[in-house]
Amino acid sequence: MRTYLGCIPCIIRQALDATCFVTDDEAIQERVLREALRAASELDLRTTPAAVGQQIHRLIRQLTGNPDPYREVKEQFNRAALALYPEMKQRVESSPDPLETALRLAIAGNIIDFGVNAHLEESEVNATLRDALTTPIHGDVEAFRQAVAGAATILYLADNAGEIVFDRLLIEQMPRERVTVVVKGSPIINDATMADAQTAGLTDIVEVIDNGSDAPGNILETTSEEFRRRFAQADLVISKGQGNYETVSEEDKDVFFVLKAKCEVIARDLGCPLGSLVLQHHRPEKSTLA
Amino acid sequence: MRTYLGCIPCIIRQALDATCFVTDDEAIQERVLREALRAASELDLRTTPAAVGQQIHRLIRQLTGNPDPYREVKEQFNRAALALYPEMKQRVESSPDPLETALRLAIAGNIIDFGVNAHLEESEVNATLRDALTTPIHGDVEAFRQAVAGAATILYLADNAGEIVFDRLLIEQMPRERVTVVVKGSPIINDATMADAQTAGLTDIVEVIDNGSDAPGNILETTSEEFRRRFAQADLVISKGQGNYETVSEEDKDVFFVLKAKCEVIARDLGCPLGSLVLQHHRPEKSTLA
Repeated sequence: MRTYLGCIPCIIRQALDATCFVTDDEAIQERVLREALRAASELDLRTTPAAVGQQIHRLIRQLTGNPDPYREVKEQFNRAALALYPEMKQRVESSPDPLETALRLAIAGNIIDFGVNAHLEESEVNATLRDALTTPIHGDVEAFRQAVAGAATILYLADNAGEIVFDRLLIEQMPRERVTVVVKGSPIINDATMADAQTAGLTDIVEVIDNGSDAPGNILETTSEEFRRRFAQADLVISKGQGNYETVSEEDKDVFFVLKAKCEVIARDLGCPLGSLVLQHHRPEKSTLA
Repeated sequence: MRTYLGCIPCIIRQALDATCFVTDDEAIQERVLREALRAASELDLRTTPAAVGQQIHRLIRQLTGNPDPYREVKEQFNRAALALYPEMKQRVESSPDPLETALRLAIAGNIIDFGVNAHLEESEVNATLRDALTTPIHGDVEAFRQAVAGAATILYLADNAGEIVFDRLLIEQMPRERVTVVVKGSPIINDATMADAQTAGLTDIVEVIDNGSDAPGNILETTSEEFRRRFAQADLVISKGQGNYETVSEEDKDVFFVLKAKCEVIARDLGCPLGSLVLQHHRPEKSTLA
């Protein structure tokens, strides 16, 4: 997805929120904010909002000397999600449609996004989980079920810490030997890294790789050669969250975008109301021509 | 008031809202937004947010070739306020405390601010008027009453079109021969100019002058010599709205700031909750020493 003009004020607000979240030092806050303004003033709108996020968070880490400023909230939300896991697992297994129930909970888990909301409370996660069980899904669950059943290799692009515990519920409903989960190569906001995949227990049940990048989402040119090869070869990609949508939505792949639409611009780009549970299928162009 | 870091994302959002309000031309929207970002990245935080607003709105007028882009909404809200005026006048006159009732309605009228909210609906004005009759005032109404009674000359710094019809209710409760109302020298957002003062009927009941400036608020160095003389000589200044607060709050004058606190930063600077009806007294330093 390109950067819309409407993204820019939000990018600036997120830059200030992020630096205030990470440090109380006003000189650093001011420097990060000015740098974000300067970068945004010269931004190529054909790039994705995630590319600006990558620059800003690199600068925050550099100026604060903290290589992983969101480590504490990542652990907090991993713990909170793991505490909910047994009850949610029970709910999935006793459901008439375990795949759909697990999908709903995985979408709800996408609310744990400190890029969009640096003030998230655990109570908001609980409310989102409850709502997700009954809110209509914007997308075709049957097409998703068939695609998962038919794919020889599935690449699951994870999004945030905490959220990946809910992804585990969904992955447990898939043919695990065909699934590879992708986490970030190094810390960026509260995105899941290998440590979070281990905490969530994902590494015990499926292959987990990292993408070699410190960008939000998967900006392909910033990822490792190995990731790009796996991405090119995958039969089916399941892409979690807004950052992955922003960066992968124009790739010529068979992708299901699975996310909660938390911002107006992305909701408009997806053609759904704000707050929707999204399951959007992008097919590769060659299959359209077939 | 200086510009806080928290003002910056809001300045950028307001710049985009303003240019989208004025034109559908995306090239102009992008140019204004980039210029706002560039100006904000180099901003001296000791200046007021209003100074950036002045630059941005000059650029919007220049690029659109429209010298008064808010003319239509100014007229719309003048008409709406004038339609309410007879009922409100009746309410003031039948009140046990006409000055306080008029003051409350004048504060409520400050909601008509297209700088803060470019999507304002008339229904929101009506709701604010209703609430203002019962919400506590953050300030000392008795001190205001005494200051008005004791001042030989009162300079009333008006804020927006529409709002000045409600200011008229308050001014009618004052010794009119001692009151001079100040409007903007030329169009800036939906701020009242001389045309609006005429429409509101203010020019029939008190002296009205303009400040010679196209800035939101009264950035003294951008105002006319005549205005600065009147400002220096006034016994008492009544300053309506956030823009006037931003630009006058550090002047060494006897000023009552009369406004609705519509943004977090100004509410914090004033020491009141967001949404408060504010009547804040700033005394000149010499009287503090006396």
